[in-house]
Amino acid sequence: MPETRPRKARQPMPQDRDDAFAWIDAQRERRDRAGLVRRLSPRPADSPLLDLASNDYLGLARHPEVTAAAAAAAHRWGAGSTGSRLVTGSTELHTTLERELAEFCGFEAALVFSSGYAANLAAVSALSGRDALVVSDADNHASLIDGCRLSRAEIAVVPHADPNAVRKVLGAAGEEAHAGEAKRRALVVSDAVFSVDGDAAPLAALAGVSRPYGAALVVDEAHGLGVLGEGGRGAVHGAGLAGAPDVVVTATLSKSLGSQGGAVLGPARVIEHLVNSARTFIFDTGLNPAAVGAALASLRLLRREPERAARVRTVAMGLYGRLTAAGLAAVRPDASVVSVRAPSPEEAVRWAADCRAAGLMVGCFRPPSVPDGVSRLRLTARGDLTEAQVEEAVDVIVRTAPTA
Amino acid sequence: MPETRPRKARQPMPQDRDDAFAWIDAQRERRDRAGLVRRLSPRPADSPLLDLASNDYLGLARHPEVTAAAAAAAHRWGAGSTGSRLVTGSTELHTTLERELAEFCGFEAALVFSSGYAANLAAVSALSGRDALVVSDADNHASLIDGCRLSRAEIAVVPHADPNAVRKVLGAAGEEAHAGEAKRRALVVSDAVFSVDGDAAPLAALAGVSRPYGAALVVDEAHGLGVLGEGGRGAVHGAGLAGAPDVVVTATLSKSLGSQGGAVLGPARVIEHLVNSARTFIFDTGLNPAAVGAALASLRLLRREPERAARVRTVAMGLYGRLTAAGLAAVRPDASVVSVRAPSPEEAVRWAADCRAAGLMVGCFRPPSVPDGVSRLRLTARGDLTEAQVEEAVDVIVRTAPTA
Repeated sequence: MPETRPRKARQPMPQDRDDAFAWIDAQRERRDRAGLVRRLSPRPADSPLLDLASNDYLGLARHPEVTAAAAAAAHRWGAGSTGSRLVTGSTELHTTLERELAEFCGFEAALVFSSGYAANLAAVSALSGRDALVVSDADNHASLIDGCRLSRAEIAVVPHADPNAVRKVLGAAGEEAHAGEAKRRALVVSDAVFSVDGDAAPLAALAGVSRPYGAALVVDEAHGLGVLGEGGRGAVHGAGLAGAPDVVVTATLSKSLGSQGGAVLGPARVIEHLVNSARTFIFDTGLNPAAVGAALASLRLLRREPERAARVRTVAMGLYGRLTAAGLAAVRPDASVVSVRAPSPEEAVRWAADCRAAGLMVGCFRPPSVPDGVSRLRLTARGDLTEAQVEEAVDVIVRTAPTA
Repeated sequence: MPETRPRKARQPMPQDRDDAFAWIDAQRERRDRAGLVRRLSPRPADSPLLDLASNDYLGLARHPEVTAAAAAAAHRWGAGSTGSRLVTGSTELHTTLERELAEFCGFEAALVFSSGYAANLAAVSALSGRDALVVSDADNHASLIDGCRLSRAEIAVVPHADPNAVRKVLGAAGEEAHAGEAKRRALVVSDAVFSVDGDAAPLAALAGVSRPYGAALVVDEAHGLGVLGEGGRGAVHGAGLAGAPDVVVTATLSKSLGSQGGAVLGPARVIEHLVNSARTFIFDTGLNPAAVGAALASLRLLRREPERAARVRTVAMGLYGRLTAAGLAAVRPDASVVSVRAPSPEEAVRWAADCRAAGLMVGCFRPPSVPDGVSRLRLTARGDLTEAQVEEAVDVIVRTAPTA
């Protein structure tokens, strides 16, 4: 730029004042400086990378039976469901999936949503409400937190995996109630397996502290279904709580079942209540038939081959054992997610990139996607990984690890 | 029951006190008495009914090119996307759809979500925030309202389709700001076409009152895309606002495009901001490949056969003309939805049931799904309806109408 030109004043230019999105640039700069900018990296159909990043825990997303069922459903039922579930968006295929999913997990009824996110918004908001109390684990998934926000209920966030803290909150709320007053509606909400560290919730203890206060328990089985419980029936089933009158489960069809969508499972009257009141059910288009068909095929496959669930847990423990033996700080996995601490967001990004360069895809979780601000690699065990692939993955992760 | 048994006391039984969901039965009874209970009626793959209820406006959900694309995508890319968009859930197919959708509608960039509901939650909440002002049309869709709730912004609900009311709210907020203070972030939010009555928003006027205040405009094209604007490019395109630096569009892939999913379209920096901050983008599984493939095939079909959009509007006006000629109270349609008033929820249900018995499927909207509490039949014009089918539909609706 020629030196004779006058320098631009540093005060905002007129066009900035009228720029509706000028604030976005400021936020972007802050993210840039903090090393927290996220970019999409779309994958090809046939990636040469070894995948320890996806949530396809049972390796069913590309199972020929499952993709064939998706294709067949699109041909037979159409590419979309064409409307909201209460108008034209419910096909008999949806009903079949709902019935078989409820049966499998041991509940009276189930309701399919377009995503697990939508299922969680529905369960938390439609089962609480303005006068209710919702007790929510500090590490709960974003969709459960958003469900709390939408509920307009009083929200008590309790320390992670702490049934005693839940009991105290419910007890204090009970003492506030006066004799003769209607019992206050209360809901205890927890992930079954926490997405970031892969640890399981103390479900039996949570039910034990909730029941004496007449509080219902809502459990998100996103990472439990297909992995925990007998034949993958989920952590709630494993804890002996399936079909309980005061327990509601939410699930996703997009992880172990390799498809898309979500579901709420519970007593028939709860499901009927959701049909009549859950906004993300009433005002959303029904799940597309291909996704419904694929989830149904995966469910049937899992029922036929229940060993798939146990195999995931074996792979996860194998990963954990080898990583800790090599000196890395990993969290002992209760299900399929193995979390490995990184010293900083920058190191986590560098580590994941080095893994990628060496042919391995791993998840990289940084703020604000982690509840404790600690960055980590997030590895997901898949039931279809071979011993050799597990060894290769561990080798790459250890070789590229930050030096302590 | 033998008379010798003692009558049960009417006070709550012990099990009621411990029953976490006793309140659901009470709500159910109230709904029952009000005639507002909703039940699912799943449809078979080949329904004999004439469909004037779905949102498949262009009749593409079962178009062989579209279902074949869904099936091919499932085979090639898998039944699910396997992860969140920032981990493994972005395929090159997602990127292609995003590029072609943005191009078609005249925007710099687009971002695909798992549903239109999720896209609306993202756009409203990530583009406002705690210190922002959101001005929202009273008849906006539930997903926009939930986006407002999640945003934690100050929400000003303005009368339906009233740009002057929007101007007043923005003006009052501007006067509150003091000299030297940073300009307050403001967002004006409206459906392009309102779902219940099928009327279009005054988009040019809304942009006209928003711009002087530096407020951005977010428009939901759920019922506009594929129907309004040149070749179905949407109402925003039709109003000359496509690609404007302060306009953001949300859309659904589940109506005119016959698939599932949603999208946000806007300036590249807005889309990049959503990638980094929108919770329903970051914490949700990517849209399943079959739905992505189907939406892409529909979009290409619409580009090749732009007359499909005009045909929907012709069918809608034909329906409206014949229904009003027969003395029914219908709203003049701006797009594909034709709304016909019913005297009561009970009469609306009876009317819709009688249509169904006569072979015609129509939507039936009752409280709480209608903003004004007025029940109505909701008819949707489809571009692939023949003249004979339109005549048949009108004949059934008129024949079964409540007597005035």
